[in-house]
Amino acid sequence: MNLKIALLPGDGIGPEVLEQAVKCLQAVEETFNHNFTYKEALVGAIAIEKKRNPLPNTTLELCKEADAVLFGAIGDPKYDNDPEAKIRPEQGLLRLRKELELFANIRPVKIFPSLIHNSPLKKDIISKTDFIIYRELTGGIYFGEKKINAEGTVASDLCEYSEKEISRIAHLAFKAAKNRRNKLTLVDKANVLESSRLWRKVVTKIGESYPEVVLDFLFVDNAAMQIILNPRQFDVILTENMFGDIISDEGSVIGGSIGLLASASVGDENALFEPIHGSYPQAKGKDIANPIASILSAAMLLEHFGLFEEAMAVREAVDKSLEKSVVTPDLNAKSQYGTGQVGDFIAHNI
Amino acid sequence: MNLKIALLPGDGIGPEVLEQAVKCLQAVEETFNHNFTYKEALVGAIAIEKKRNPLPNTTLELCKEADAVLFGAIGDPKYDNDPEAKIRPEQGLLRLRKELELFANIRPVKIFPSLIHNSPLKKDIISKTDFIIYRELTGGIYFGEKKINAEGTVASDLCEYSEKEISRIAHLAFKAAKNRRNKLTLVDKANVLESSRLWRKVVTKIGESYPEVVLDFLFVDNAAMQIILNPRQFDVILTENMFGDIISDEGSVIGGSIGLLASASVGDENALFEPIHGSYPQAKGKDIANPIASILSAAMLLEHFGLFEEAMAVREAVDKSLEKSVVTPDLNAKSQYGTGQVGDFIAHNI
Ligand SMILES: CC(C)[C@H](C(=O)O)[C@@H](O)C(=O)O
Ligand SMILES: CC(C)[C@H](C(=O)O)[C@@H](O)C(=O)O
Repeated sequence: MNLKIALLPGDGIGPEVLEQAVKCLQAVEETFNHNFTYKEALVGAIAIEKKRNPLPNTTLELCKEADAVLFGAIGDPKYDNDPEAKIRPEQGLLRLRKELELFANIRPVKIFPSLIHNSPLKKDIISKTDFIIYRELTGGIYFGEKKINAEGTVASDLCEYSEKEISRIAHLAFKAAKNRRNKLTLVDKANVLESSRLWRKVVTKIGESYPEVVLDFLFVDNAAMQIILNPRQFDVILTENMFGDIISDEGSVIGGSIGLLASASVGDENALFEPIHGSYPQAKGKDIANPIASILSAAMLLEHFGLFEEAMAVREAVDKSLEKSVVTPDLNAKSQYGTGQVGDFIAHNI
Repeated sequence: MNLKIALLPGDGIGPEVLEQAVKCLQAVEETFNHNFTYKEALVGAIAIEKKRNPLPNTTLELCKEADAVLFGAIGDPKYDNDPEAKIRPEQGLLRLRKELELFANIRPVKIFPSLIHNSPLKKDIISKTDFIIYRELTGGIYFGEKKINAEGTVASDLCEYSEKEISRIAHLAFKAAKNRRNKLTLVDKANVLESSRLWRKVVTKIGESYPEVVLDFLFVDNAAMQIILNPRQFDVILTENMFGDIISDEGSVIGGSIGLLASASVGDENALFEPIHGSYPQAKGKDIANPIASILSAAMLLEHFGLFEEAMAVREAVDKSLEKSVVTPDLNAKSQYGTGQVGDFIAHNI
């Protein structure tokens, strides 16, 4: 298969982990006789620095032409504590999601048995946890109108959803549930928010076309508790943008292995793959960043194009690195392996 | 001291747990020679049933005249799954917060050492956790304009904050931090939301008047992770309404003792005290609901009026019930004690 892949290393540890994912894709090309081409472009803080734009047009064009985007990480603390900053790295990612219409962010939360001891939760709570979050990614309060009055004393953000925005991701989530354990949980705040009530109405209606899937509802505050109290109860979770941001990050730490979790952001015509962890600027350039989440993002990319055997080869190589403890220090404090060495080991085992 | 206390039992297990709190207040009256008067009123689903209004005017008047409100719980599943319902129990609570200007919801998260084994988290993660959340309670997306178009296909909620709304609760939170470990963490989403950027600006400015307090910032998604990964890092957390709803419920389960956690909602002129748990309709009338959170809400009420010795007597009686395992089945599956018996034991030991 021929695939055009846009590489967006971004900020912090983004470039170094992405490099390892590319090594693995190249190993896949060789082993399975595919032909992938890679083109790199700027995004985030580094793009602001070099082009005064967190998403330069050349980057956007490259992503639109590509079959898929492999993303590193975004963000730099220097912008975070400056409420007056007009340009922010995150705007690059948000605009990219919007322009590519990546309306569904898909995050599997799975427990790696060999890492269960790293979890802050007790083993009997999390073992066998296996759920997947569908987070709406191009609507809601992230993209609603933002206002601040002239005196700078009143600010607002609008959370708006349309039936169309809800139904397209709801269909994806129901389909996923059908292929899994037939359970879908909608997380909302329908006892307070009008937009949540629309979610509940639309999703309930769509549910009628998926009679085999059991649909239930959780208020977001309760969901934040249930994910810790009893994560095994979940199969597919569907939720809006802001709640999904919070709930999926919460979900990502319960397995004790955030350095291992990947995500896909998909739309009708485009797809982007990225690790869940952020830009982790403190670790930049120290050769300690865990490349596995980025490598597993590449595996999700392969799956997206139906290359299941190839993806499995990547996953098995990752499992091997975990078994043999060829891992970065976050997973094993005594480990001597750096980011690049872990990447080499995994690529070599594909 | 004379105190006029409004009792709002509300729905589900609200009435039965509130009854135990009143027993304890009566024991305090006798032991310490105070004179409290109690008047009861309807709120929530039961008020809708009897008066077609989740917050009847007589209830609101009673609360305004009272020195403090002791609240049970609110909510009934029959309204939750009906997106078309025009009247909802929660509206009663929200309107009450607004009318009494209870702008700060204060939730201590403390670990009861004798219950640490009930926590879903590992002991070494949570032991010695002791933080307190200040959640803004009368602004933000809960109270912003709600819209739905005529076709019912587009719905929105507005999240708006003013400098004044932010600064009054910020001052309370900084003062609390001064009396504790001098650390305040603002939880927001300033990399995306305009309203969060206003929070950051206003809180930073106010921080200059509290030089002894170290102020730091966390994005809400990161906060959802940090509360599980390392809850001991927190002293005082300050946040807006919606984030506070999620984060404080998440925080409430890490100790393994949500049936023990109380909260205060305060304004310049009014104060309301309630357990953190909800109406738990499945347990209603079964004499299994844990009354301790409600009893500890009464202790917070006493503290609010400077009755520290009295509050301590209540807390010590609660500790005794935990030590002797005179507790409801949620804390000890083998326990034979009911809600009323636990209430009697605690009241008796004051
Ligand atoms: C960087 C930020 C804007 C982003 C978000 O909140 O969507 C991130 O937290 C994520 O979840 O991908
Ligand atoms: C009942 C509901 C409206 C309420 C809220 O979200 O504020 C509750 O969850 C709470 O936290 O007190």
